[in-house]
Amino acid sequence: MPEPSKQDNFIGVDLGGTKILAGVFTPNLKCVSRSKMSTKGERGPEAVIERIAHCVKDVVDECDLNLKQIKAVGVGAPAAVDPESGRVIFAPNLKWEDVPLKKELEKLLDLPVFIENDCNACTLGVYETELDPKPRNMIGVFLGTGIGGGLILEGKLYSGFNHTAGEIGHMVLDVNGPKCGCGNKGCFEALASRTAIFRRIQSAVKDGQKTVLTEMLGEDLADMRSGDLRKAIKRGDKFVESVIEEAAEFTGIALANLVNVFNPEVIVLGGGVMDQLEDEMLAIIVETAKEYALTGTMKGIDIHASKLGDDAGITGAAVLARRETK
Amino acid sequence: MPEPSKQDNFIGVDLGGTKILAGVFTPNLKCVSRSKMSTKGERGPEAVIERIAHCVKDVVDECDLNLKQIKAVGVGAPAAVDPESGRVIFAPNLKWEDVPLKKELEKLLDLPVFIENDCNACTLGVYETELDPKPRNMIGVFLGTGIGGGLILEGKLYSGFNHTAGEIGHMVLDVNGPKCGCGNKGCFEALASRTAIFRRIQSAVKDGQKTVLTEMLGEDLADMRSGDLRKAIKRGDKFVESVIEEAAEFTGIALANLVNVFNPEVIVLGGGVMDQLEDEMLAIIVETAKEYALTGTMKGIDIHASKLGDDAGITGAAVLARRETK
Repeated sequence: MPEPSKQDNFIGVDLGGTKILAGVFTPNLKCVSRSKMSTKGERGPEAVIERIAHCVKDVVDECDLNLKQIKAVGVGAPAAVDPESGRVIFAPNLKWEDVPLKKELEKLLDLPVFIENDCNACTLGVYETELDPKPRNMIGVFLGTGIGGGLILEGKLYSGFNHTAGEIGHMVLDVNGPKCGCGNKGCFEALASRTAIFRRIQSAVKDGQKTVLTEMLGEDLADMRSGDLRKAIKRGDKFVESVIEEAAEFTGIALANLVNVFNPEVIVLGGGVMDQLEDEMLAIIVETAKEYALTGTMKGIDIHASKLGDDAGITGAAVLARRETK
Repeated sequence: MPEPSKQDNFIGVDLGGTKILAGVFTPNLKCVSRSKMSTKGERGPEAVIERIAHCVKDVVDECDLNLKQIKAVGVGAPAAVDPESGRVIFAPNLKWEDVPLKKELEKLLDLPVFIENDCNACTLGVYETELDPKPRNMIGVFLGTGIGGGLILEGKLYSGFNHTAGEIGHMVLDVNGPKCGCGNKGCFEALASRTAIFRRIQSAVKDGQKTVLTEMLGEDLADMRSGDLRKAIKRGDKFVESVIEEAAEFTGIALANLVNVFNPEVIVLGGGVMDQLEDEMLAIIVETAKEYALTGTMKGIDIHASKLGDDAGITGAAVLARRETK
């Protein structure tokens, strides 16, 4: 096989509320370099876009390439995005509304830029790099600080009428449940995200619940991370185990809803919570989904966890860049 | 315009758990004759299929046509259906499993037969006969004895991996809610179907609740129908009004879930409950959906009620027959 041209590399950018990640990918989607920078969203869209460009230039330089050897840049943004116009419609975490991200970034980098919703990009990354053979339809479900998803239909991202499809974190599962950031009660995200899990633990500790987490992190549980929960469970903490079990059960119910409505061939789970707690959660998620899905609907449906970990966002964005320039 | 050929008529069959409806449709999908027969599901698949054939022959004769003037027959069945093989995979109400409905009916009628899930067929009927211009994607939501739905994507029915997509009645909305026939708690169907509404009324009456329904129907509320609820509300019955409002609110929450996940351009509501109680329910449904859907996701999405009424099933089945023979 001929060696891939040195001009055919891709950049994947994962634009988050707190940090920007950028990665350089070979034509075969191998990541050869990564770079990270804080987002500094408070400085406004123009400054953030300059930081993205800066981060891209850094990561390209880091692996001894230059921008001329990059074919295209993909960006996954925490936002409703119009991929055709390249505009961010609405990004609640960044407080952006109608920002011409593609156009501005293309000016700064003199390269083609393609943008997508971050969970859509992650789903695309999983589909392209982890699934073989390709299913006709799939759903990506990402459990992190919030919960988001992406839908692939007939091999293409499906983003719906307002480019907002896949907002699975705001499916109501428990109409009388805990308050969600969106204003409703009992959304999937209010029941099974890292935020929801941490809130339940902190509130129980305040009420006198004993847990090894306070030994590990102090009484105020400062800087608690998903990995700490895994460690606590490994140390036999039944309380933390029960909180994680509950989150896994709600995730299973959400998946059953998606299976009943959408009947995808494959569901892939990812995000920081899954990356850290797959061993503790996945079996419960699958079992609960089977219990809640209608007879016959789950037959042959594959539910598993992605292995992309922290690279999911940049990989998906790079896949987007490669797809769009094929 | 040339007069359509007399050979190009279609039959639509709506196979239900208790009755079979058949209609003759002109090439332009005008219904010129209808016939009805009880299903008699207890006699088993072979007998039911014979009854379908009988009903089809009757309705054709009724409008002075013969089977040679029929181009194809469509059947909507209350089942998971494989349209390609023409087999009913699983029909809980009929207690059918793996029944070659298409093949057997083709033998009896000597006509091409096409089968679909009943809610999918109804959705197709709405899409083809009521929507102009055609949306790229839509969801049909049918509130009756149970609750079902159908999804159209890029102008085509979407039925998913196991041909069971659109089972929206079994989305869990209230994980601690009332028991559903499927075994779970708080499914959409357990909260807003006719069965759920009647159960709530009957249980309240048993507990001493006053309502004009008992004046209308007797203390045991025998033979209560959706239309009776409309009459009770028109007579100022605040109790019945509140029960219907609650069902409408749950329907709105279900629609918000669908909008968040699927972001369709159009949602059309139908089914016996909607046909009878549109004036009482639709505004509340739309308002609640807007309240529960994420910011930006509902923009421009059209939610309205179908006017097909009892003809929805046969119309959809006839549309299916016409589509498949084009």
